[in-house]
Amino acid sequence: MVDIQKYLERQRKKIDRFLDQAVPNDQAAPKILYESMRYSLLGGGKRIRPILALAAAEAIGSQDDSILPFAAALEFIHTYSLVHDDLPAMDNDDFRRGRPTNHKTFGEGMAILAGDALLTMAFELCSNPTLEDCVPQDRQVQIIQELAVGSGHGGMVGGQVLDIQAENQDIDLGSLQTIHTFKTGRLIRASVRIGGIFGGATSSQLDSLTGYSEDIGLAFQIADDVLNMTGTREELGKDAGTDAKRGKKTYPTFYGIEGARDLAEQCIRRAITRLEEFDQKADPLRAIAEYIISRRN
Amino acid sequence: MVDIQKYLERQRKKIDRFLDQAVPNDQAAPKILYESMRYSLLGGGKRIRPILALAAAEAIGSQDDSILPFAAALEFIHTYSLVHDDLPAMDNDDFRRGRPTNHKTFGEGMAILAGDALLTMAFELCSNPTLEDCVPQDRQVQIIQELAVGSGHGGMVGGQVLDIQAENQDIDLGSLQTIHTFKTGRLIRASVRIGGIFGGATSSQLDSLTGYSEDIGLAFQIADDVLNMTGTREELGKDAGTDAKRGKKTYPTFYGIEGARDLAEQCIRRAITRLEEFDQKADPLRAIAEYIISRRN
Repeated sequence: MVDIQKYLERQRKKIDRFLDQAVPNDQAAPKILYESMRYSLLGGGKRIRPILALAAAEAIGSQDDSILPFAAALEFIHTYSLVHDDLPAMDNDDFRRGRPTNHKTFGEGMAILAGDALLTMAFELCSNPTLEDCVPQDRQVQIIQELAVGSGHGGMVGGQVLDIQAENQDIDLGSLQTIHTFKTGRLIRASVRIGGIFGGATSSQLDSLTGYSEDIGLAFQIADDVLNMTGTREELGKDAGTDAKRGKKTYPTFYGIEGARDLAEQCIRRAITRLEEFDQKADPLRAIAEYIISRRN
Repeated sequence: MVDIQKYLERQRKKIDRFLDQAVPNDQAAPKILYESMRYSLLGGGKRIRPILALAAAEAIGSQDDSILPFAAALEFIHTYSLVHDDLPAMDNDDFRRGRPTNHKTFGEGMAILAGDALLTMAFELCSNPTLEDCVPQDRQVQIIQELAVGSGHGGMVGGQVLDIQAENQDIDLGSLQTIHTFKTGRLIRASVRIGGIFGGATSSQLDSLTGYSEDIGLAFQIADDVLNMTGTREELGKDAGTDAKRGKKTYPTFYGIEGARDLAEQCIRRAITRLEEFDQKADPLRAIAEYIISRRN
């Protein structure tokens, strides 16, 4: 069995080290830009997306650290999305990870630009010429495609648009699911698939990983919705109960808190079933699935 | 000799056709997002960056239309930067290309998201799996790297940060040049280099193209500064005289209008000299250089 806390801690440290050296902080020009990027990128965070990429590669036998730029790129994308989502014109949030949000610290203009720079740098990392000798280039291009599709109009950004449109609307469960599939699910799916592609997954392995990622993506969102209702500001590092305040429909609105927890649990069971063809090298993926519904932030 | 007006018109139409079909407009989800993306992407524009990419490829003997996704990606990036730069937290502009800016039409939140989607989609286009049979994958990865570096922290975004910081500051000519090198120059350089890389330029050819691109990039910016002072709102499609109103230092501030025009002219002469090793296939590049300082918008 995997000690999930130790595993997550070890992987998180590895990713944090990479992230820290990935953003230049000694450039002659716009120091303030790098400060703003680093403020949000390095201000804590579970690193669940990069860890999923690493664990998926591991599941098919690859423990090669040259996956790190791709894994880091997922965190760059995730971070930029938080910075932009927190803006006054969007969710207008003042706190994130226990600290003032980026625009509260650096101003709106800089927050927009830091987000743009983080997003762009994700693709700079993935296309870095030094990867040439480490990763077959067809895989590299495939990974870039996964990242772009999962985070753009047909993925995360599309989901954010749906989410904004749905505020104060009387949406049904189907619409809620669509929003989450795009807003959270597609980047989580990309994270797992990127690990699989990097490791050279067969088509059947990639299908199984994709199924797993869709199930845990849904469970992750349900767990987030529940935490938004039940967590404290200290646990979450941001304001709690914000969904209800905004009149936002969430899984607990439809199922109640216990019902939502049951649903997340079912998703996790199904996710683990998807990994049947994998041996114990997929244990980290299995343990991450369990962790997703047990976490407190 | 190249009839530059006809050449630009022909290339612009080719690019506009590609851009029009590149943004999905029949998706089930966030129709408003696609409308916002299309509003800014297809609302006119000289398409100078994609045209430069096409002309650079042509200069080394490639007229292959599979360059179009890469050329279009440059326009996606350029468009997103306009949408974000126009936001109230940045330049706060109400007009662009003769119409209300994106955020004036769709609201700030949607303008931020449409910009994010355009930026991300640039990389989606460049990594499209259908390109596999058309472009060697090492070139494809190199092109993605050029695009990311030219448009991110070490390029366009970095330049925008410098530009914002310089407002109402008493900057010197060296600082002005640095701002422009980042803000405008790097993406123009990437445009020309992407054409060169796509066409399989030798290292020496790529060096010459890079020199050309740096010279025309500077000329382009000087010409823009002059137009901002001398153009009318009708000619420019946006408010004129905005630099002076903002207390922004520009090339005409240092050299006067005639002096700035002379300087742009010198840059163009130098750019054309850089192309000496190329035959008449580089005539479009030469003609574009001349066009840059003769344009009225």
